[in-house]
This record gives sequence, C-alpha cells and structure tokens, in this order.
Amino acid sequence: MGRLAIIAGTGALPALLAARHPAAIVRLAGVEATVSAAQVIEARLERFGALFDDLREAGVTDLCLAGAMRRAGFDRASLDARTAALLPRVMAAQGQGDDALLREIVAIFEEEGFVMRGAHELRPDLVAPEGVLAGKPPETGDAARARAILTALGPLDVGQAAVAAQGQLLGIETLQGTDAMLRFVAQTAPGSGGVLVKRAKAGQDLRVDMPAIGPDTVALAAAAGLSGIELEAGHVLLLDPDAVRAACAAHAVALWAVP
Amino acid sequence: MGRLAIIAGTGALPALLAARHPAAIVRLAGVEATVSAAQVIEARLERFGALFDDLREAGVTDLCLAGAMRRAGFDRASLDARTAALLPRVMAAQGQGDDALLREIVAIFEEEGFVMRGAHELRPDLVAPEGVLAGKPPETGDAARARAILTALGPLDVGQAAVAAQGQLLGIETLQGTDAMLRFVAQTAPGSGGVLVKRAKAGQDLRVDMPAIGPDTVALAAAAGLSGIELEAGHVLLLDPDAVRAACAAHAVALWAVP
Repeated sequence: MGRLAIIAGTGALPALLAARHPAAIVRLAGVEATVSAAQVIEARLERFGALFDDLREAGVTDLCLAGAMRRAGFDRASLDARTAALLPRVMAAQGQGDDALLREIVAIFEEEGFVMRGAHELRPDLVAPEGVLAGKPPETGDAARARAILTALGPLDVGQAAVAAQGQLLGIETLQGTDAMLRFVAQTAPGSGGVLVKRAKAGQDLRVDMPAIGPDTVALAAAAGLSGIELEAGHVLLLDPDAVRAACAAHAVALWAVP
Repeated sequence: MGRLAIIAGTGALPALLAARHPAAIVRLAGVEATVSAAQVIEARLERFGALFDDLREAGVTDLCLAGAMRRAGFDRASLDARTAALLPRVMAAQGQGDDALLREIVAIFEEEGFVMRGAHELRPDLVAPEGVLAGKPPETGDAARARAILTALGPLDVGQAAVAAQGQLLGIETLQGTDAMLRFVAQTAPGSGGVLVKRAKAGQDLRVDMPAIGPDTVALAAAAGLSGIELEAGHVLLLDPDAVRAACAAHAVALWAVP
C-alpha cells in the first residue's frame, strides 16, 4: 500500500484506523471529526479540485472513507471548477439513496487514480466473526423476522438495521441511522425484549459506509429493552471489539453474528 | 344486511359508522373507545365464548371491526373454554404479524357464522377516491420512492406508510403506527419537505385494519415538515373527508390518491 489518507467522519473509526496505519487525515469542513494526525489536509465539499491537488502534493495514493458523514451544508457559490463539473453526477446519485451517492464519490476518486481502501481491509481485526460474541442468543424468531425485512429492502438501498420483538417489527432504519431508530424503539415500545439485526445492504460496497456498532449501540439497545444484537458476519465492524463485548456484559445484551 | 354490531377500537371510525348504520357496539375491556349506542355489549379478549353468546342473544348477524386496537393485556387466568381452545391459533398467527392476527380473528368470527363487514362497505363515502384531494402534489420522486419501499415490504406484512424526502427514506411504519413514525420524523429530520405515502399492504383484508388518515395525521405530517400525503385510492379511509381536507388547507399539505 502506498501513502494513505483517511477522509475522517465522526465516530471512533478514523482514530482506530490511524492507530494502526500511518496516514494523513482529511478533515472535511462541516464534518465533526475528532481524530488528529501529524498531517492534516483541510478540505471542503465544494472544492474537490483543490482536494485532489492537495492529496497528490502530499504523495497520497490510497484513500479510506471512515466514519459517519452526515451531509454537511453545501454552498453552491463557492464551487471550484472540478466540483462544478462533477455536480450533476453527484446530484443524480444522491436521488437514488445513500449508497448510490457514496458509490459515485468512490468512483470519482478512483477516476482520479486513487486506490480506495475499506476500513475492513485496514483493520480486519475489527470485523465481526461468525459465532456468538457475547451472552446467549435468545431462541425466538425475531432475528429471522428482522433479517427478512432487511433482505427485502436491501435491493432498494434502504435499511441496514431493524428491530423485531415477538414477531412484530418495532423499527426499520432510515436515513437517521441505527441510534435514532433505537431511541425511537425506546420511546415507543420500551421493554419489548426484542432483537436488533444489523447487516450490510445487498450489493453494498464495504469500502464505504460499512455498518458498524460500538459500545454506545449496545447501551442504546439495552435502553430500548432489547435482549440481543445479531450482526452479519464479515460485514459489520465492531468499534472496538473489547469495548463492545464489555458493554454487552454490562447491559446483559447477547451479541452474535451469522452469515 | 342483518343486525350489525361494531367492535369498537379507538379513533373516530366507530362513531362515523354508527352515525349511518343502526348498530350495537361491542366494547372490549382495555380498548379505549368513545362511541356510544343504545345497545352496548361489554366483552373481554379472554372470553370469546361469552361474546359469541351475547352477540347471538342480541340477534347480531353482521360484525365490523373498526378503529385501532392496540393489544390490550391478556389475562390467561380468566380465559373461558372457547378462548382457551382458540388460543393456539391466535398465538401462531400473532407471530406472523398484525395482519395475520387480524385475519385469524376474522376467520374465527366467520366460523361462528357471523358476516364480517368492512368499514369501506358501510361508509364508501369515506374511501379516498383517485385524484387530487387538496393542494398541489409536489413534482418530486419522493412519493414513488416511498411507494417502492411499501411494495417491497407488503408481502412481509409490514409497512402501511413511509416518508421520503429528496430521495431519502426518513420513516417506515412499524407496529407503533403512522402517528409514531411522523413524530419520529418531526424529531429527527424536521423541515424536510418530504412526502408521506400510505397504502394498504399487498393482500391486506380491507375488512380489518383498513388504513385510515384523519385531520390529526395531516397535522402531524405538517409538524414533520412534510409537503404532501399520497394515499392508495380505494384503499384508505378519510376520517372524515371534510375534516381532512380542511386540515390540509390549514397546514398547506397537499393530498392525493393514486391506484
């Protein structure tokens, strides 16, 4: 691998990657990222042209998009020429869902000659392995029910997570993310004893927006009264595994991963 | 039609039906129903046998399940013999979703010889007709996006409603209902300008749990910052049409129905 830059979103992932790989950090204006590094490249969504130049000047050959990127505001008045030329592609992709948008952004970087790396390539130790990871999975049909929903929605580029309890769906993830869904379940159907299932969408490019859970996810699941979390083995990141297992033990939430 | 009894759930529908059809009212313990009538039959979920007897004694031949029936608590200690015998069927159906449960309950009443009537049969004037009902539908792809989600979920007996804005899904209805979903959108993605789509699930028995909106739905959609509501023509009730149209005008929410 050549010289790596991490385009840093929010959450723990950018720092977990930087801890193992010497990397420059790209900080996007409007995105709250807490990771620091010896080399920081400041960037703006409106100025992709400048970012390409800065990356090349820094000798960067490989890029990793890491962490959550809630869409920052976009100031059309300050577009550079490259970004203006790319805008129609980005806008068209945006209308087709999150995944389409990220795929387009990855394609744009690849066309510029950068190699896109997934967080799972850089830190395979963070990827959920198959099997029971904590506690004892409940013997209900709830995980299968939530899984069936995600399978149906995946081709539509919607839904990385769902909650089922006693055969009923209590939450299906939308743009607002898993945490918002878990808070909704906590508010509207507390104490259900149900299960959270989190999986990649069918055909999802794991190099971007790979599903992830952290200790906070476990705490929110517990607050929603859930008894377990099922992940898709090989397709969900644990941020980080020790902290997630400790949270499961502390909150009596089972955790397991299936193909 | 013979002698009608309305099994009354919450909301405006039971009273709207009773206003046009002389009917006995079945009041289920634990279900908040506000409708009154000359003849009220008190019933309990635990005592279906007694309910069958009471209905026959009152000369009731036709039944209509109307309004929302949030599951009341169920006291296994006070089951009558008929209910105990029916319990395994009800429990099995419950594990397969709301619709399956209601279908099973309808089947049980039919086996007892009662004719099950849908609210749309009793009040066809409340059914949303095709076309624009209020305001001007927005010219975005959001309604189509939400509709595609509901189409994918329908066979799984999930989802009568979804919210999309700018190509993104912001809410998918789960057990907690449309109102809870709209409150979630208001909390987590206010001011999106999106669209609520409400449809029957594929294969849904319209005689039970027919989708409905009322003026409150319009107010909640407005509070969530939505600009329009699309219904499935012929498959959604307006409770009642004048009040819904007035709410749309007051809140500047467009309303239309498509096949």
